[in-house]
Amino acid sequence: MTAPLRVALLGCGTVGSAVLRLVEEQADDLAARIGRPIEVAGIAVRRPAHHPDVPQHLLTTDSAALVRRDDVDLVVEVIGGIEPARSLMYAAFEAGKSVVSANKALLAEDGPALHAAAAKAGVDLYYEAAVAGAIPLLRPLRESLAGDQLRRVVGIVNGTTNYILSRMAETGAGFAEALAEATELGYAEADPTADVDGFDAAAKAAILASLAFHTPVSSADVHREGISAVSATDVARAAEIGCTVKLLAICERVPNGTGDSVAVRVHPAMIPTAHPLASVGGAFNAVFVEAEAAGQLMFYGQGAGGEPTASAVLGDLVAVARNRVAGASGQGPTGYADLAVRPMAETPTRYHVSLDVADKPGVLAGVAQEFARQHVSISTVRQTGHGDAATLVIVTHSAPDAALSATIAALRDMPVVRGVTSVLRVEGLS
Amino acid sequence: MTAPLRVALLGCGTVGSAVLRLVEEQADDLAARIGRPIEVAGIAVRRPAHHPDVPQHLLTTDSAALVRRDDVDLVVEVIGGIEPARSLMYAAFEAGKSVVSANKALLAEDGPALHAAAAKAGVDLYYEAAVAGAIPLLRPLRESLAGDQLRRVVGIVNGTTNYILSRMAETGAGFAEALAEATELGYAEADPTADVDGFDAAAKAAILASLAFHTPVSSADVHREGISAVSATDVARAAEIGCTVKLLAICERVPNGTGDSVAVRVHPAMIPTAHPLASVGGAFNAVFVEAEAAGQLMFYGQGAGGEPTASAVLGDLVAVARNRVAGASGQGPTGYADLAVRPMAETPTRYHVSLDVADKPGVLAGVAQEFARQHVSISTVRQTGHGDAATLVIVTHSAPDAALSATIAALRDMPVVRGVTSVLRVEGLS
Repeated sequence: MTAPLRVALLGCGTVGSAVLRLVEEQADDLAARIGRPIEVAGIAVRRPAHHPDVPQHLLTTDSAALVRRDDVDLVVEVIGGIEPARSLMYAAFEAGKSVVSANKALLAEDGPALHAAAAKAGVDLYYEAAVAGAIPLLRPLRESLAGDQLRRVVGIVNGTTNYILSRMAETGAGFAEALAEATELGYAEADPTADVDGFDAAAKAAILASLAFHTPVSSADVHREGISAVSATDVARAAEIGCTVKLLAICERVPNGTGDSVAVRVHPAMIPTAHPLASVGGAFNAVFVEAEAAGQLMFYGQGAGGEPTASAVLGDLVAVARNRVAGASGQGPTGYADLAVRPMAETPTRYHVSLDVADKPGVLAGVAQEFARQHVSISTVRQTGHGDAATLVIVTHSAPDAALSATIAALRDMPVVRGVTSVLRVEGLS
Repeated sequence: MTAPLRVALLGCGTVGSAVLRLVEEQADDLAARIGRPIEVAGIAVRRPAHHPDVPQHLLTTDSAALVRRDDVDLVVEVIGGIEPARSLMYAAFEAGKSVVSANKALLAEDGPALHAAAAKAGVDLYYEAAVAGAIPLLRPLRESLAGDQLRRVVGIVNGTTNYILSRMAETGAGFAEALAEATELGYAEADPTADVDGFDAAAKAAILASLAFHTPVSSADVHREGISAVSATDVARAAEIGCTVKLLAICERVPNGTGDSVAVRVHPAMIPTAHPLASVGGAFNAVFVEAEAAGQLMFYGQGAGGEPTASAVLGDLVAVARNRVAGASGQGPTGYADLAVRPMAETPTRYHVSLDVADKPGVLAGVAQEFARQHVSISTVRQTGHGDAATLVIVTHSAPDAALSATIAALRDMPVVRGVTSVLRVEGLS
C-alpha cells in the first residue's frame, strides 16, 4: 500500500473527537475503501490543555499553518461558525486541498462563493454532516435526484426543538418548562438561541433549498420563526384537531406565470398525526421530499450527536480521498437556476386560529366577515359554547401569509373577540 | 452549448418510455445540470410495431449495433433479465460507453464481473433504479455510509408482495384471493412467480448486501422463501401478538471469532406494528439500515412504476454524463472484504408457532421439552383452552434456524399435537 493521505482536523469537540476515534478504529477498512491509508496529520484546537486524551504531538493552535502544511492532503472542518472556519476553508482551497465540513452556518451564508473557490482550485467541498447529521440527504438531493424536478422538501431538521415539542405534547408542559428539562438532560445548549429561535433550522433549510432547486439560497432568504411562542394551549388545540406541533423547515418551488420562484421558511406548524413526519419524535430528524417523477420520499435518522455526525463526515472523507487518489474532483452542486425568492407575505399558507368570543347571535358571522374581507376562505369552523362565552376553532384554506396575519390582527380588534388563544400555521392537511 | 451527448435506450416498456418522455420534457434542466445537452440517439426494441408513439426513425431491432454506434456516448439498459442485457452491457463497456441500468437480476447474478469490465474500460456502471425504484439507496450505501460499519439492512423491497400482504391484513383474505385482486388491479403480473416466490426481492437483497458489506453476494447466496404459503391464519395470529406480516429482505453482518460472515435472506416475517417498517403499506418500499456510528436510518418511497424508476435512471444518467463531460469516471463500489456467506441453517432467527393440542395435563411440558431438546429457548407462551382442545401460541428466543425447523418437525410428530396451524419467523421484537 502506498503512503497515507494525511488529514488536518480543525476542531476537536464532540464531532471532531468521534471522527478521530473512528479514523483510528476503522483504519484498515478505510484504507481498503479509499485505496490508500489515511491518517491524522494534525488537530487544530484553541486550548490544547482541554484535550488530554488526544495524542499531544498532533495538537496545534495554529490552524492557518496546519491547513497550509505540505504534508496535509485533506482538511476536515468541524469548528462551526463563520470565522475562522471561512478563512481556513479558503486557505485550504488555495493550497489545493479538498475540504469536508459539518458547518451549516457557513455553507448557508457563503455557499456559492465557497463552491466557486473549490471549483477554481479543482478540489472538493463536501458537507453531508451539515444537515440532518447521519442521514444521507445532500448527496441524494444533489445526485440521485439530479434527473428529477423537486417540488417540495419538508423536514424536521433540529433535534433540540423536536425534543422540546415532543415533551410538551407528552406532558402538557409549557415551552419554558420543557426547555429547562431539555437543558438539564443535555438536549439543549446553555444558550439555546440558535436552536429554539430557528437559526439552526434556517441555515439547513437554505442548504436544502439550494441543492433541491439548483439555485442560490442563503440563510437571509429564509423566513424564520422559532418555537418560544408555542404555548401549551397551541399543543392542546393541535391534538383536538388530530394534529401535532412540529418545527418545520419548508422549501418549495412555487410555479409562476413569469418564472418559478422558491419559498423557504422555518416555523412551527400543526401537522396531522397520520403524516409521516408527525411520528418523528425526540432527537430524531426526518426529511420528506416530493419530486415530479419520484413522487414522495422520506429520509429518517439521527440528526445530531458525535458519532452520527462523524459517520457523515467520514463518508465525505472517503469520497474526497477516493477522488484525490483518482486525481479527480467530484461533482459539485449545480446552481444554474437563479430563481427569485418569494417573500413570506406572498407565500400561501393555512392557519389554525382559536378565539374566545361572546356567545351571542351574529358573532360567527362577524368573524367570518373579517376572513372574507382579506379573501381568506375558511375550511372548517367548530364552535363550543360555555356560559356567555364560546370558543371558535377555525382552520382556513390556503391564502397568502400576509392576508392571514392581517386577518388575525383584525380579529384581535373586534369587540366581540375576548381573546385570540392560539394561532399556528397548518401543514399537510388535505 | 456544445454538441449533445447521445444516449442509446435499450428497451422501451414502462420504464423506458418514461425515461424517453422525461429526457424530452426536462431537456433544458438536464443540459444545465450536465453541462451539455443530451438526446436519444436510438431505441432498441424487439417489436417496433408495438411502439407507435415513439419517433419511428429512432427505433431499431439491432441492439448490438446500436450500443456500438460511433454517435452513441452513453447506454441506458431497461430491458431486464439476463440476456441479451448482459452481452449488450459488455459490448457497451468494450466500446468505452458508460451504462445506466435498472436490471436487478443481472446485477445480482454478475455484479463483480460487470464492475470489473466497466473499471477496465474506465467507464461507469450505475444502477440505482435496480433496488427500491425511486428511493435513493445504493448511492447512500456506497458513498454516504462509506466511512461507517454497517450491521444490518432490512427492507420491504417488493411492492407486489407488500400489496398482497397489506390486503390480507386489511380484509382477512387468503393468499390466493389477495393475489387475484392484485393481478386484476395490475399490481401483480400475469406470471407473478418472480414477485411472490421472492426472486425479485432476493436479487435486490444480494445487491444491497454487496454494497453494504463491501463483499460479493449473488442471488444464489440468498436464502429465499416467498409468500404463497402465508395463510389468513398466519396474518390473524400476527395481529393477535401485536405484529403484522411483511416479506423482508434481511442482510446482516454476523460477528465471528475467526472472521465476520454475512447472512442474506428473504422470507415473510411477523414484525411489531410499532416497527417503522410495519406501516409501509401497499406498493411502497422502505429500507431500514443500522450502522455502527450512524445508528438507525430509514429510506422510504415508491419502489416501482415507470416514473419513479425513471427518476432513478435519470439521476444516474446525469451522473455518468457529468463524468463523461469531466473526462472522468465515478467511484464504483468496493468489494474488498470477501466475507463468507453464512448458511440459513446457522443464521439466528426467532419463530412464532401456533399449535392445536389436546387440553390435558402435561401437554405444555411435553411441547416445551421438544424446544429444549433443540436448545431453543421460549420467550412467551400463551395457552387458550376451548373444550377438550387448546391453542398454544409460542414465540421463541433467537436460535439457529435449523434448530427451529427441527423443533417444528418434531412437534408435528407429537401425538398430543393435533395440528401446527401457523409457523412464521419473527423479526424486530425486543
